[in-house]
Amino acid sequence: MTIKVGILGYGNIGRGIESAIKQNADMELAAVFTRRDPASVVTKTDVPVVHVDDIADWKDKVDVMILCGGSATDLPVQTPEYVKMFNVIDSFDTHARIPEHFANVDKAAKESGKLGIISLGWDPGMFSLLRLYSDAILPNGKDYTFWGKGISQGHSDAIRRVKGVKDAKQYTIPIEAALDAVRSGSNPELSTREKHIRECFVVLEEGADAAAIENEIKTMPNYFADYDTIVNFIDEEEFKANHSAMPHGGFVLRSGKTGFDNEHDHIIEYSLKLDSNPEFTGSAMVAFARACYRMAAEGQTGCRTAFDVAPAYLSAKLPEELREHML
Amino acid sequence: MTIKVGILGYGNIGRGIESAIKQNADMELAAVFTRRDPASVVTKTDVPVVHVDDIADWKDKVDVMILCGGSATDLPVQTPEYVKMFNVIDSFDTHARIPEHFANVDKAAKESGKLGIISLGWDPGMFSLLRLYSDAILPNGKDYTFWGKGISQGHSDAIRRVKGVKDAKQYTIPIEAALDAVRSGSNPELSTREKHIRECFVVLEEGADAAAIENEIKTMPNYFADYDTIVNFIDEEEFKANHSAMPHGGFVLRSGKTGFDNEHDHIIEYSLKLDSNPEFTGSAMVAFARACYRMAAEGQTGCRTAFDVAPAYLSAKLPEELREHML
Repeated sequence: MTIKVGILGYGNIGRGIESAIKQNADMELAAVFTRRDPASVVTKTDVPVVHVDDIADWKDKVDVMILCGGSATDLPVQTPEYVKMFNVIDSFDTHARIPEHFANVDKAAKESGKLGIISLGWDPGMFSLLRLYSDAILPNGKDYTFWGKGISQGHSDAIRRVKGVKDAKQYTIPIEAALDAVRSGSNPELSTREKHIRECFVVLEEGADAAAIENEIKTMPNYFADYDTIVNFIDEEEFKANHSAMPHGGFVLRSGKTGFDNEHDHIIEYSLKLDSNPEFTGSAMVAFARACYRMAAEGQTGCRTAFDVAPAYLSAKLPEELREHML
Repeated sequence: MTIKVGILGYGNIGRGIESAIKQNADMELAAVFTRRDPASVVTKTDVPVVHVDDIADWKDKVDVMILCGGSATDLPVQTPEYVKMFNVIDSFDTHARIPEHFANVDKAAKESGKLGIISLGWDPGMFSLLRLYSDAILPNGKDYTFWGKGISQGHSDAIRRVKGVKDAKQYTIPIEAALDAVRSGSNPELSTREKHIRECFVVLEEGADAAAIENEIKTMPNYFADYDTIVNFIDEEEFKANHSAMPHGGFVLRSGKTGFDNEHDHIIEYSLKLDSNPEFTGSAMVAFARACYRMAAEGQTGCRTAFDVAPAYLSAKLPEELREHML
């Protein structure tokens, strides 16, 4: 018997989940749910595309619903709503609002008897797990998270809102000297500017003032003013050829001391180099969908995060296989 | 209320655990248990040193007993034996015998109603966790584990058994070119010789034949014959000055593909650089002792591994703190 997964929202992450399900023989895609006209959504897998208004009809035909909405406005509504009908998974990533989101999902899930696991992917997600494990093992230490090299959707959007900009992509790039300082065990205090560079590739509208736009980007508060920002103007052809991929990644490090006199240094480093951010995120969500299915089958209800999931639940392999081959 | 921890076996790992407990305010060392004459054991912390024959007297005074014996002969006997009286933690690391050890501990623990978590530390332990998480997220991929640079106790012992050798340390060194090949995403097939170098520092007995000993080391089956091995002869003074520390570390990598046509590559890399192998191992065991205490308090019994422990159990922080600050 396979685990029947639903996807709500067929964008980049939805497609990443669809392709990840293909790699997991114990799972199958049951249906894709959309707010658009279902006839307009062409999936790669031959499954029903269902309008979200009819999602309740699938209550008994989907074991885990993976929600692929955005964190700003979709998920705060969707996750508590759909956990009334389904076990759900989301990738809610507005760090500051996680406690509130958790509470809302937990309340709805306990009422419905379903299980929701939130904030999955790689950050939050795998990076969070690495921060937790490393902090628990080396309590006398310091954490560092670096992102990139990769595209920040939020920063790219901010540039596209500048008048005269036709299209733009922004790469967040960790500064190697800062990474090396952390790896040295010196526990540096690093400013925002010392950790990351922001490099922008911008296509201008006809007749736009490049110098003025460059200045507007570089001085944009919150997004760019605190960073060393590089602005490259390129034509549309080069933009499409070289900046259409969705790579990302980053580093989580912990530098900690042990010994009666804190005389020994330890460095834990975790890094991801991802060709496709949405496909990796989708792959992580699919593994947690398996965990969600199993934990719900045990009778667990309420809200969970990656912190609450015993790792063995994520794997398609049997516990005895895991002990024999992976321990 | 603090978690009362016992240490059985006061060697390098035992001392590592003792110093780790000092860094965790929710834990206290209750006593050290030894097979030696307790009067001969001088601990850093002012706690009772108790002969192992009297360990049963501590049944109600120790929440978790951390077993620091060796995997060859101590733990196969000790872990099933002491889980009859205590919740226990061990660092059993004979990979091939883990299934058998698990079964023995599980049976004894279920009979006694106690909980045992086995094979903790960094490999097995954190490296195992990283292999599991990475395999679950990227099922279409390949795992690589590299060890070092660090001292292999087993290989150092093997050299010390050679006639004419007074003392020896052996460093396992990962080969950078092999690491880089894995990082490139090319999924190389790597032979034993291509992954690690073995470098030995040897102090000779008076009048020993250096050339013969070098040859005996380099051709030793299982230990050195399959590797490029470097043998350095040094005097005792240099040996003590430069080779008394216990550094170790290593790398776990997974290279995997996603996408409908497997068109995207991903690299997950986890690495440890440890000044003190026993102190890091002890620190990891202490975090799992916290988990063991909590899981036992919930009524869990039997045997577990790191794979069965939800990460939040390891942390001294409250679940809401973890969600707010680490997710």
